[in-house]
Amino acid sequence: MRFGFLMYPGYEELDMIGPWEIATMWKTYAAGPECVTVAQSRDPMRCAKGLLTAADYTYEDAGKLDYLLVPGGFAAFEEMKNEQTIAFIRACATEAKAVLSVCSGTFILLAAGLLEGVEATTNWKVIDKLREAGVTVIEERYVRDGRIWSSGGVSAGIDMTLALVAHEAGAEAAWITQYQAEYLPEGKLYGSLTTWQGAPAYARRLRQED
Amino acid sequence: MRFGFLMYPGYEELDMIGPWEIATMWKTYAAGPECVTVAQSRDPMRCAKGLLTAADYTYEDAGKLDYLLVPGGFAAFEEMKNEQTIAFIRACATEAKAVLSVCSGTFILLAAGLLEGVEATTNWKVIDKLREAGVTVIEERYVRDGRIWSSGGVSAGIDMTLALVAHEAGAEAAWITQYQAEYLPEGKLYGSLTTWQGAPAYARRLRQED
Repeated sequence: MRFGFLMYPGYEELDMIGPWEIATMWKTYAAGPECVTVAQSRDPMRCAKGLLTAADYTYEDAGKLDYLLVPGGFAAFEEMKNEQTIAFIRACATEAKAVLSVCSGTFILLAAGLLEGVEATTNWKVIDKLREAGVTVIEERYVRDGRIWSSGGVSAGIDMTLALVAHEAGAEAAWITQYQAEYLPEGKLYGSLTTWQGAPAYARRLRQED
Repeated sequence: MRFGFLMYPGYEELDMIGPWEIATMWKTYAAGPECVTVAQSRDPMRCAKGLLTAADYTYEDAGKLDYLLVPGGFAAFEEMKNEQTIAFIRACATEAKAVLSVCSGTFILLAAGLLEGVEATTNWKVIDKLREAGVTVIEERYVRDGRIWSSGGVSAGIDMTLALVAHEAGAEAAWITQYQAEYLPEGKLYGSLTTWQGAPAYARRLRQED
């Protein structure tokens, strides 16, 4: 089994590398799939915040992928127009057990035609934009609808990927992955939800539980 | 102000890139310091789980850093013997407002002589090893002792960096950073703490609150 992580110029660092760390912990400690990075080219590319990374596979030689994760970032709105990227994602999706998006990566799945009749989510800043595009948006930290998984912004992909591990390999595999990544977040809120214009529904629930 | 993020062959991806994302959000949305990657060489290097990254600055041209973050990974136990890395960290530490370590990166700070009389923490797997080295270990998700910050394994650096933002720039800056990164983790535990041999004290407290 193989898990592909898409890179494109300007992808948001943590969108991809949070899930990457969870999936590679799954691989290492709980027999998860091999994890590979894929991009249109192997040339080094800058992420949204300037980190320099490079992929190991291209669209031509990536081979069969059982899982594919598509990160977001402002650049996702450009990348969704890249016909080669869209063709690659479409081809993967025909056989993959799951296709996942983080943040505005959901718009790339939209452009690939993978969201027809599918419930999904995205970064809170562009939830209305996704709704306007005709998608049924569920304002949760992550959403699974059949083989399509999508998450909120940036760090939400970590929670989604851990849920994927539990779904595909069971709670024990997810628990092993969780403590190997020491993913026991503090859960501290540094401010009030009332000051966050556009907070998604799952975040507004946190406030009620304070 | 400038915030340096150390890279070395085999550093653990999320140890560095979790804090990087938080700090670059701080920079972008709340006037935080410029963030730069630093390594012994600009050559691309493999991380612990195989991601290919490259630094923008070397020890020679990094310039003055107000903050320095040192990631961990199994390779930290090799890197702590690298005299050039140790000399670089020591030189930074004389002027920096804060030096931070994630995971086994704490052992690199130890080798640089920064933990004398300092309370610190590290990845749960090597807490005993840090204690045996004479360090006063505090089993929290992250620990600040003066200018030295240290955190537990892998994902714990995210919480630590957000706490750094609050400490250096106030709760409002931390809150803006938090919601820009949508860092509102689900907080779900996929298993029982009783099955986790070596769980640190802060994790065992989570169990009591279940």
